[in-house]
Amino acid sequence: MTIGKYKVEATDGTARAGTLSTAHGEIQTPIFMPVGTKATVKAMSSHELEDIGSQVILGNTYHLHLRPGEELIQEMGGLHKFMSWNKPILTDSGGFQVFSLSSLNKLTEEGVTFNSHLDGSKLFISPEKSMEIQMALGSDIIMAFDECLKYPATDKQIEDSIALTYRWLKRCKERMNRPESLLFGIVQGGLSLKYRMQSLEQICSVDLPGYALGGFSIGEPPEMMHELLPEVAPKMPKDKPRYLMGVGTPKDIIIAIDSGIDMFDCVMPTRNARNGTLFTWSGKVSIKRLQYAKDPRPLDENCACYTCKNYSRSYLRHLFMSDEILGARLNTYHNLFFYLDITRKAREAIKNGTWNDFRDQCLTQFSKKDSDS
Amino acid sequence: MTIGKYKVEATDGTARAGTLSTAHGEIQTPIFMPVGTKATVKAMSSHELEDIGSQVILGNTYHLHLRPGEELIQEMGGLHKFMSWNKPILTDSGGFQVFSLSSLNKLTEEGVTFNSHLDGSKLFISPEKSMEIQMALGSDIIMAFDECLKYPATDKQIEDSIALTYRWLKRCKERMNRPESLLFGIVQGGLSLKYRMQSLEQICSVDLPGYALGGFSIGEPPEMMHELLPEVAPKMPKDKPRYLMGVGTPKDIIIAIDSGIDMFDCVMPTRNARNGTLFTWSGKVSIKRLQYAKDPRPLDENCACYTCKNYSRSYLRHLFMSDEILGARLNTYHNLFFYLDITRKAREAIKNGTWNDFRDQCLTQFSKKDSDS
Repeated sequence: MTIGKYKVEATDGTARAGTLSTAHGEIQTPIFMPVGTKATVKAMSSHELEDIGSQVILGNTYHLHLRPGEELIQEMGGLHKFMSWNKPILTDSGGFQVFSLSSLNKLTEEGVTFNSHLDGSKLFISPEKSMEIQMALGSDIIMAFDECLKYPATDKQIEDSIALTYRWLKRCKERMNRPESLLFGIVQGGLSLKYRMQSLEQICSVDLPGYALGGFSIGEPPEMMHELLPEVAPKMPKDKPRYLMGVGTPKDIIIAIDSGIDMFDCVMPTRNARNGTLFTWSGKVSIKRLQYAKDPRPLDENCACYTCKNYSRSYLRHLFMSDEILGARLNTYHNLFFYLDITRKAREAIKNGTWNDFRDQCLTQFSKKDSDS
Repeated sequence: MTIGKYKVEATDGTARAGTLSTAHGEIQTPIFMPVGTKATVKAMSSHELEDIGSQVILGNTYHLHLRPGEELIQEMGGLHKFMSWNKPILTDSGGFQVFSLSSLNKLTEEGVTFNSHLDGSKLFISPEKSMEIQMALGSDIIMAFDECLKYPATDKQIEDSIALTYRWLKRCKERMNRPESLLFGIVQGGLSLKYRMQSLEQICSVDLPGYALGGFSIGEPPEMMHELLPEVAPKMPKDKPRYLMGVGTPKDIIIAIDSGIDMFDCVMPTRNARNGTLFTWSGKVSIKRLQYAKDPRPLDENCACYTCKNYSRSYLRHLFMSDEILGARLNTYHNLFFYLDITRKAREAIKNGTWNDFRDQCLTQFSKKDSDS
């Protein structure tokens, strides 16, 4: 196994199935990556993550830098050991949170000064600092430190921003000196095809083991992304994994896979689970609705997860109404299993040459709401 | 297997080891019963409860009556099926919560009128109603509806109360008509040996498959219970299980087993877990303390639980400080495992004739705090 090698094993149209080798094992794509913000995927144990077929999880550099700090995690043997997870970990660069969570952030060529959202203390992150934090965490896949523009942005803002992101990427690569970690570059460019292509050309001119699309799902109408993806994704290097950051709904994921994207992360399945919004193969279910009070059926009769095999909608509703931790657990377990099931089944369909049928079925089913069921 | 049969298998002094047969299987005593207030032991799945060796869990009649209601649970196939737990369930009578949680409760010979703590609605529970709710839930062990006096109480109050509890017990027995369920009577009598013995004589004159001591751990100095138990417990019928309700600390449990008690329940391991107070074989640990920030050791090196086998004190502290659900889970898992380990090891010691040594060791260890470790 060569660390960083990506092998495309099958294609169906522009959709791809492949395998990425990392220092903590292989990742079979397309793949959804559960988000473990603060060294824990909320409500899940690391062994449950394995049980549902997670192959790689995400850690948030910004949150871990603030608490408990990368030095502590490094001293405890790295993020894998700290959270008892022995498969691949991808860390983001911290950039997204610096721009969205912290107050008073100030951007210069050198990096970003910001105030911690926890205690207001003044902090600084640069491309170099982001690399140092992620290397200290022991991450398998390290994301470049980029500027995350808000939506909407002017052409001038986008132009300046992609230029800065390009310069920062070169500094990231320069600073990286951990052979076990893979650095992924991030294509920005807002919702403009022109600037997306310009950024893509710049970012992909730097030889890296993988490339991502950033700056989507930040408040724009979803159709804008759905229209851009088929134009942009297929232009990314074919022999490298393609990661669409922070996306999205089940429908978004199907459309992105169709465009040739390989990797996904999103807080939606975990966050929605805690809010009682559950994803099923027959559409969304809002478990608090009275119609489920005496519903003895499993949440999703077509789901093989622990929640669906052992508990009824009636019980899940009761737990949710009673604000019980087990409710958050069972809902999270199901939603993550469902997201992983989508990418697992997508991979099978691509390998079997039945992707178009699978895609169309999914797009029909996923638009249903529980009023239909 | 005869439902309701209790066999004492070994004694060591007044300490006992036995087996109780129920409609959902055998219970080996001494045993700690995790508390599943609202059809869930907080933060635990039913399968984790099995993994840690739970043999019987508790359900709270008052809470389940209010939400989701026993009719709903009965319609869903009973409490066992509802919460996916196929071993014995003991339900309390609702009395304790009626007197402690609800507002404006009014006591008459007939029963208690009270206002729901959820929505203020006016409700009524009598001995008959309590039996009906518990039978509808499908409970294996049904507790008699008794009056729960507050501490302190006057002699006159205690005298009236034990008389009422006795009359109510006879009404409970009269109403019971579910052969799969076992009715346990409850001895009251405050902290007075005289009234305890009087209540014991009355309650145990009713032929029942088990008897409990109620009205302890309600705010009195623990020494008062420690002094009364060796006087009272051995006078309870020898061929029936003896249950000390709502007790207590690890030390309380050792002292009670020494006095001949067989069954325990308490919210302490689960509630303390969520507050970051953890029990170990070397004393209590307050996991939020700074001294654990970089402590790579397991919580308890002598513990074989999932938490101790997979995670460090450092990680547990991080989860607690970050208010993560996994923190509540891992802490709860450990504390319940620890309580079950106490009763499991107590049983072994009683069977091996080494009870006195085990008791003395425990009493020394359990008084330690984390400042000592």
